[in-house]
Amino acid sequence: MASPVIPSTGVLAPLGLDAVRLTPGFWGDRRELAREVIIEHCLEWMEKLGWVGNFRGGPSRGREFADSEVYKLLEAMAWADDPRFDELAAVVVAAQEDDGYLNTRWSGGRYRDLEWGHELYCHGHLLQAAVARWRTSGEGPLTDAARRAADHVCARFLEGTEACGHPEIEMALVELYRLTGIERYLEMARRFVERRGRRALADVEFGRSYFQDDMPVRSASVLRGHAVRALYLSCGAVDVAVETGDGELLAAVRRQWDRTVERRTHLTGGMGSRHWGESFGDDHELPPDRAYAETCAAVASVMLSHRLLLATGDARYADQAERTLYNVVAASPAPDGRSFFYTNPLQVRVPGRPAQGVNPRATGALRAPWFSVSCCPTNLARTFASLPAYVATETPDGVQLHHPTPCEIRHDGLTLRVETDYPYAGTVTVHVLEAPAEPRRIAFRLPPWAAGVYVPHQDRPRVWSRGETFAVELPMTARWTRPDPRIDAVRGCVAVERGPLVYCAESPGDEDRLAEISVDPSAPPIEHAIAPDRVELEVTARHLSGGPVGLGLLPYHRWGERGPATMRVWLPAG
Amino acid sequence: MASPVIPSTGVLAPLGLDAVRLTPGFWGDRRELAREVIIEHCLEWMEKLGWVGNFRGGPSRGREFADSEVYKLLEAMAWADDPRFDELAAVVVAAQEDDGYLNTRWSGGRYRDLEWGHELYCHGHLLQAAVARWRTSGEGPLTDAARRAADHVCARFLEGTEACGHPEIEMALVELYRLTGIERYLEMARRFVERRGRRALADVEFGRSYFQDDMPVRSASVLRGHAVRALYLSCGAVDVAVETGDGELLAAVRRQWDRTVERRTHLTGGMGSRHWGESFGDDHELPPDRAYAETCAAVASVMLSHRLLLATGDARYADQAERTLYNVVAASPAPDGRSFFYTNPLQVRVPGRPAQGVNPRATGALRAPWFSVSCCPTNLARTFASLPAYVATETPDGVQLHHPTPCEIRHDGLTLRVETDYPYAGTVTVHVLEAPAEPRRIAFRLPPWAAGVYVPHQDRPRVWSRGETFAVELPMTARWTRPDPRIDAVRGCVAVERGPLVYCAESPGDEDRLAEISVDPSAPPIEHAIAPDRVELEVTARHLSGGPVGLGLLPYHRWGERGPATMRVWLPAG
Repeated sequence: MASPVIPSTGVLAPLGLDAVRLTPGFWGDRRELAREVIIEHCLEWMEKLGWVGNFRGGPSRGREFADSEVYKLLEAMAWADDPRFDELAAVVVAAQEDDGYLNTRWSGGRYRDLEWGHELYCHGHLLQAAVARWRTSGEGPLTDAARRAADHVCARFLEGTEACGHPEIEMALVELYRLTGIERYLEMARRFVERRGRRALADVEFGRSYFQDDMPVRSASVLRGHAVRALYLSCGAVDVAVETGDGELLAAVRRQWDRTVERRTHLTGGMGSRHWGESFGDDHELPPDRAYAETCAAVASVMLSHRLLLATGDARYADQAERTLYNVVAASPAPDGRSFFYTNPLQVRVPGRPAQGVNPRATGALRAPWFSVSCCPTNLARTFASLPAYVATETPDGVQLHHPTPCEIRHDGLTLRVETDYPYAGTVTVHVLEAPAEPRRIAFRLPPWAAGVYVPHQDRPRVWSRGETFAVELPMTARWTRPDPRIDAVRGCVAVERGPLVYCAESPGDEDRLAEISVDPSAPPIEHAIAPDRVELEVTARHLSGGPVGLGLLPYHRWGERGPATMRVWLPAG
Repeated sequence: MASPVIPSTGVLAPLGLDAVRLTPGFWGDRRELAREVIIEHCLEWMEKLGWVGNFRGGPSRGREFADSEVYKLLEAMAWADDPRFDELAAVVVAAQEDDGYLNTRWSGGRYRDLEWGHELYCHGHLLQAAVARWRTSGEGPLTDAARRAADHVCARFLEGTEACGHPEIEMALVELYRLTGIERYLEMARRFVERRGRRALADVEFGRSYFQDDMPVRSASVLRGHAVRALYLSCGAVDVAVETGDGELLAAVRRQWDRTVERRTHLTGGMGSRHWGESFGDDHELPPDRAYAETCAAVASVMLSHRLLLATGDARYADQAERTLYNVVAASPAPDGRSFFYTNPLQVRVPGRPAQGVNPRATGALRAPWFSVSCCPTNLARTFASLPAYVATETPDGVQLHHPTPCEIRHDGLTLRVETDYPYAGTVTVHVLEAPAEPRRIAFRLPPWAAGVYVPHQDRPRVWSRGETFAVELPMTARWTRPDPRIDAVRGCVAVERGPLVYCAESPGDEDRLAEISVDPSAPPIEHAIAPDRVELEVTARHLSGGPVGLGLLPYHRWGERGPATMRVWLPAG
């Protein structure tokens, strides 16, 4: 099977790229964008900046984790079946040392700075790239290299108390164990998870919570510190828990997920309230303007929610993944796939300036083609390329569609074609292209705003006929959303959502016409269906001094496409 | 005269430590705390950590700007007439190189990193320490060292386009010019001011605005970037403008001050909205919880407002200095003078943990004895030690009392004793101890909340008699303050002020009883005058679920004295 995550047990089993094929539509288009543009864009930039050249023995270029970007790109290429994979993989493999260690920056002095060196983090991404290739095309030079790297890591770290300043290798080792059956990899992952929180690392200015070394995973009640680190670690902890049958560890991550989603997550699904340390804030510290909400944290959040969905079958995890996919992951890339948001704030007061070349900062109110720390473009590439693996799952009695999007799904003799203009329209039509003689259950996840919607036949397995068709109608009425009253930063404000999409107001140009407005939430938003994939809204607003005016809203994921602009999701009410 | 700032021209002239003597009272007590405790505390820590030892040739300890802390301590010692001054100064002087360069970190490779090296910044603080000593005790080894350092700087930097990543030396050079009359120092300062904003420095992750190198001082409309850097640069620009008669430059700083105070300053006077880059935010970006409001930025803000007050005579500058002094500068030190707030947020949701030893972070919801970057304790020491210089000014026809506090003021044959329990009580009594035969005008600054209060005799000069007494009554009624509606972060909230003091609610212990409250601003706050220097308030509050309760408020500058607590200045109204 071709999927990034294939647990050996769980309530739901994944359906990989071999079982789900995306067709033109919201997510299928984005997968094609990755295949046709984003991968090439990343390759061009990393050749130009010398990050690929690092593997060829060139002078060390980029940041200390630049190797990982090449690995994430390789992973994307594997999922996309990109013909350039072998050539790039060969460059990487040639740089590996005899004992399996592979890092272009630190080979002269290994593991001298576990807090910031990112060596195990880079090895982790190497493993994930190899797993992707193995599952899509079988073994090859990169998969050999990954096994040797994993063996090296185990030899060096199985004993002792050390861990990496950036979690990542934990989930990678578990996935390699799932592929190879080599128990040592699982045990290494388990130990890395367990070591954290026991002073595996030195204190740093951001505090040990920055890399989740402030308390053991199984003791924590909420995610904290650097958001991507916290989420990657949680993914590894779920993987370890699932493979070792550690119910306590799984329960700990579920508990942390619950409180984090309730109190430390923006309406868009964005995680990370602080620029300082790129970190979670305190409970209810959710400033719209300074929301960091890094694209990579959204990718990591989807990875975590997907793992928890598989392990537990609880649809709330898919709900959160949907919120995050549509309102952060989809917001990052420009339509042309050549510039990206790194942070995803919910309010911008000062229009961005067009980026020229490499953006030395993560911030900026315009998408940028590349960054000094350019983790987001490659993370988007591998996520988009592997998107089919997130759409549906299976159980012995049938399939579950979690994310309605145009696609074909095959499951044990059953072949379905899903057609829909979701997330803009609510009709989801399922055509049965092939059907087995045995009964099958076809189930739909209904988001909370669609609770109670009728889904034909999903209560129990039935025998399907080829050519049969049914439809589900999701209610796509725009709705006002009021914030938790404990969130100080958006007191007195409302937001607008429609289906899975969060909407925002945008004011292109230099003048910020959103600084002094308030809206009237007593009237429902008016819909303007401009195209099948373009539904805008209008609400009644008032300036501090002035009469009522119509205020247009567009899906948050499309903000910033018209050039420099101010923007806000949360609108003062009254 | 003994004052940190003695402009050659200006609407108001300073009265130095030789003319103003603080007696026991709000500010007099704090000056004594600096003299008796804070200076010693700083000296102990810097000996213990090796920062003084750096000058003795010890292994380089502390951050790259540790030298400046020793200089700030020397400045404090000079203002405080501390007997240990000469001994510490001798240690510093012995480390100076033959050509005047003095830095314990970079002597092996000078000025190789102007962005972050802080060498000119350190030289600036050396100059300020020497100026303080010169003005209080006359010339000596440190003043010689400072002149040689200034000569070195001029020789190295007078030509060219370079500047320091941290402004500071500009105002120091102007002050040394004011003392020595050496025009080259003024010209060097002028050039450093003019170079900034013309790519004097490389781009950094925080952007060139971080060190105000994004646009020339005279073109900018608002302060931006690192708050302390921006404020120090503004001080230097005012000094240069005053000495060179550059009205355009002075007007530029006044314009920036206006917009910064209107849109980028917290109610407490705190400046710096962002932890990221310790920087100003956008207009109206003033989050109470993530307010950085560094103690050093408050010190720098007072320095700038004082300079603008002297130059223009506009009382608004003293108003802002008063707000900042009472609600940030006074908030930083614990009553025992041995622990300090570095940042001064207006809301804390999670109680701090007791600090042990050096706090590696600037943040923390409890005062800490020392920090890895420990700029604030020494800055407080020099500010408190020189406080008399901020209290009053003079003109040819009399004196102006800007900050009512117990003191004695001498001016050209006139000696006044000021008695008051301000800021807790509103009565300010002035006793004439000595009087000249000529008429003198004794003027009071009235804060905006006291506009219209009657001040006897201040309209014109009159002849005073020894033994004469008069009083001014400032209205000390607690008042509700509503925020600018453009500040998103405190929408729907109110605060309470009384006299110059901002009040706050505090919830000691682990439970945050402030998370879900709202207050009723229709009723006036009730006063509890517990002692002459302790006036607390009570307002009616309501929990999200529950009936009305009394909520105690205390002056913001006293928050955190009862141990770990949550706190908020802005209270939801409703």
